[in-house]
Amino acid sequence: MKPEDFILVSVDDHVVEPPGMFKQHLPPQWQARAPRVVRKKDGSDVWVFEGAQIPNIGLNAVVGRPPEEYGMEPTSFDQLRPGTFDIHARIGDMNVNGVLAQLCFPSFPGFCGTLFARQADKELAVTMLRAYNDWHIDEWAGSYPGRFIPLALPPIWDPKLMADEVRRVAKKGCHAISFSENPEKLGFPSIHNEHWDPFWKACNDEGTVVCIHIGSGAGMAFTSMEAPVDVMITVQPINIVTCAADLLWSRVLRTFPNLKFALSEGGIGWIPYFLERADYVYKHHHQWTFQDFGKKLPSEVFREHIITCFIDDKAGIQNRNLVGIDTITWECDYPHSDTTWPRAPEILAESFAGVPDADVNKITHENALRHFRLDAFKHRPKAKCRAGALRAESPGVDLSLKSQGGKPPSEEKGRFVSTKDVTTQLATAFSTPAE
Amino acid sequence: MKPEDFILVSVDDHVVEPPGMFKQHLPPQWQARAPRVVRKKDGSDVWVFEGAQIPNIGLNAVVGRPPEEYGMEPTSFDQLRPGTFDIHARIGDMNVNGVLAQLCFPSFPGFCGTLFARQADKELAVTMLRAYNDWHIDEWAGSYPGRFIPLALPPIWDPKLMADEVRRVAKKGCHAISFSENPEKLGFPSIHNEHWDPFWKACNDEGTVVCIHIGSGAGMAFTSMEAPVDVMITVQPINIVTCAADLLWSRVLRTFPNLKFALSEGGIGWIPYFLERADYVYKHHHQWTFQDFGKKLPSEVFREHIITCFIDDKAGIQNRNLVGIDTITWECDYPHSDTTWPRAPEILAESFAGVPDADVNKITHENALRHFRLDAFKHRPKAKCRAGALRAESPGVDLSLKSQGGKPPSEEKGRFVSTKDVTTQLATAFSTPAE
Repeated sequence: MKPEDFILVSVDDHVVEPPGMFKQHLPPQWQARAPRVVRKKDGSDVWVFEGAQIPNIGLNAVVGRPPEEYGMEPTSFDQLRPGTFDIHARIGDMNVNGVLAQLCFPSFPGFCGTLFARQADKELAVTMLRAYNDWHIDEWAGSYPGRFIPLALPPIWDPKLMADEVRRVAKKGCHAISFSENPEKLGFPSIHNEHWDPFWKACNDEGTVVCIHIGSGAGMAFTSMEAPVDVMITVQPINIVTCAADLLWSRVLRTFPNLKFALSEGGIGWIPYFLERADYVYKHHHQWTFQDFGKKLPSEVFREHIITCFIDDKAGIQNRNLVGIDTITWECDYPHSDTTWPRAPEILAESFAGVPDADVNKITHENALRHFRLDAFKHRPKAKCRAGALRAESPGVDLSLKSQGGKPPSEEKGRFVSTKDVTTQLATAFSTPAE
Repeated sequence: MKPEDFILVSVDDHVVEPPGMFKQHLPPQWQARAPRVVRKKDGSDVWVFEGAQIPNIGLNAVVGRPPEEYGMEPTSFDQLRPGTFDIHARIGDMNVNGVLAQLCFPSFPGFCGTLFARQADKELAVTMLRAYNDWHIDEWAGSYPGRFIPLALPPIWDPKLMADEVRRVAKKGCHAISFSENPEKLGFPSIHNEHWDPFWKACNDEGTVVCIHIGSGAGMAFTSMEAPVDVMITVQPINIVTCAADLLWSRVLRTFPNLKFALSEGGIGWIPYFLERADYVYKHHHQWTFQDFGKKLPSEVFREHIITCFIDDKAGIQNRNLVGIDTITWECDYPHSDTTWPRAPEILAESFAGVPDADVNKITHENALRHFRLDAFKHRPKAKCRAGALRAESPGVDLSLKSQGGKPPSEEKGRFVSTKDVTTQLATAFSTPAE
């Protein structure tokens, strides 16, 4: 298939929340307590919520910069490409990349809304979280029907509230909700605990996909502060293997037959190994570990419940039948540094060399549309959904790389940038004094 | 190739050290302080060294038991299959499994000799460590020339002593030494620190392979004490990916051109994904992380320096050229629960279906013999090295499964055995009161 003929649905991108996002989604008495953007004397922008500053307004949102600046953490909206936070500019950026639809994870509230979970005032917390979800579903995704798979944040501190929120947003057409790769690391019970059953049941009933993004609980994986930062960047996706194993061996998948999880940004090339390993462990050990998958193998149960995705992954595509051809989806990771924007169709075409069209279609869009229940073709004819057609709709988008300045993690010549450099850079951002 | 025609060289097995092992390898004045085996009133055997008990005499050495007993931790030599600790019985067990040669990791001193490193008296420590290595090389492996790839333990607390030991054992024909997957977790500098340079240089000069076994520093990987123990068993091998990334991005491989590392028990099916990911990260990020591989890609440097291995891994074998056909080796993991003993040839034959003989030979023995510098065919003609011939040499080995009793990690019916059950079982063993 030619690049311009792909229909691309991405299941993992990110929105940088714009200032004023809560305005239309809160009753007047709550407005004053909503998170707000404050520009500081040093020119940086921070979110301020309940007296605390949240400076990482667009964590690693470096799209459109030259690669030399990928390590420079944006500290103000001026440094961001407008497509990161402006819905109309976003559509333009999607069009020039030939992307029909996408699912956006949050930035400042944390991947599963931990900012809200940390608030002592739980009425405030759930009010702001619902307003966030309403903004995301009605205003962000709702501005362009058929172009977004909306994603809700969970009130993760209360499974009953989570279940209510799943049902509430499902009525608005939202069938995806974010969750943690390891809630125990966030101070909640593990996924093996029956604590979460009301949430699983609601997702099971409503056909809502539980989306687990890398870095959503188990922390960043690093071996040493002295290690080159490339170690962390390399292993961060595959580290979701522990979450995949946790889900696979848990009672959850076997208790809730319709429940589906998406491993967001986890890659797929390691999955044939992982599933073979799981089946081996099952056959070798079930007699003393008391695991029981009935007449199935763990790999079969995995493929019934787990949606996977990749940015660019030739090994995974080559082994697509061992991964599970009906569960592989694609992601663009806009606006983060790993994104293939704006050349996604061309990069994918290389990785799809020799793959039959039927498989390409499953991976690029059919699986995503089915699992996440988006009826994109209701909103525009299929021919106008292809990469070439979308690109033709936005001929004026400026693709030139723009230097946005900022402070690199290290200016020391002759040595690799280390984990310590990058964590220090982020720690400094967090400790900026209030004004 | 038929199962009986394989020539099998395994690069990861384990020896359970027999009582009295230090006798012939220490001068008289040190004999009284050597670790010794003590049988306790409850019938259990422990190693006693400098007043401390080490109860896990043969950690998970459950070979020959029915699978229901794989979770029962051996607490006495009576519960062990003699092949685990008796060199003559070991050869019989290798023969019935068609294994020509093997490399044995230690049991009671820890994978990289941390028992010795923990001793305050460093003269005692290095004396016992050298005696251990002499026993391993001269008595264990030396009893059957050509049948073992000897492995030395490093005096890991002192890189200069490590270099001396590398050179000392190299003179005795030992070209493999154990090391940690993350020495920082053991209280030493990270592998990125120049601290280790004398050790790397000695290995580089002597052609000595640095063998890094899973679980040799970074601890066991688990998500929650509530998680089924199967989670830990499944991900333990692939967790070596963080060590692989650490090595790959470090200055070490690029500074020491002949240096080779073996990732022991890490599996291979995930490596095509990992190398593709590393190359992607390099291309996307090197301009701000300052990594420089010259005219090579990270994947090429990896294949020049890293030896991989697997127990049974169809996905890896199928993708052998993406892994690196000249660096893949095989392992048997005798006497641990994941071993394919005594059916290794038959199990391998299934995984090798359709693979050309030339590739089978590389993976089963040629790569291992070359990298670890064992000239096995000097000791016996090639025809007598094949699985079928070896099996014919030991017709009388008893292969019936034997119940050896012991305490299972959990006797509670109706639930999975958890991480907590297994760690409690091991913790109890460690806290057995002295007598």
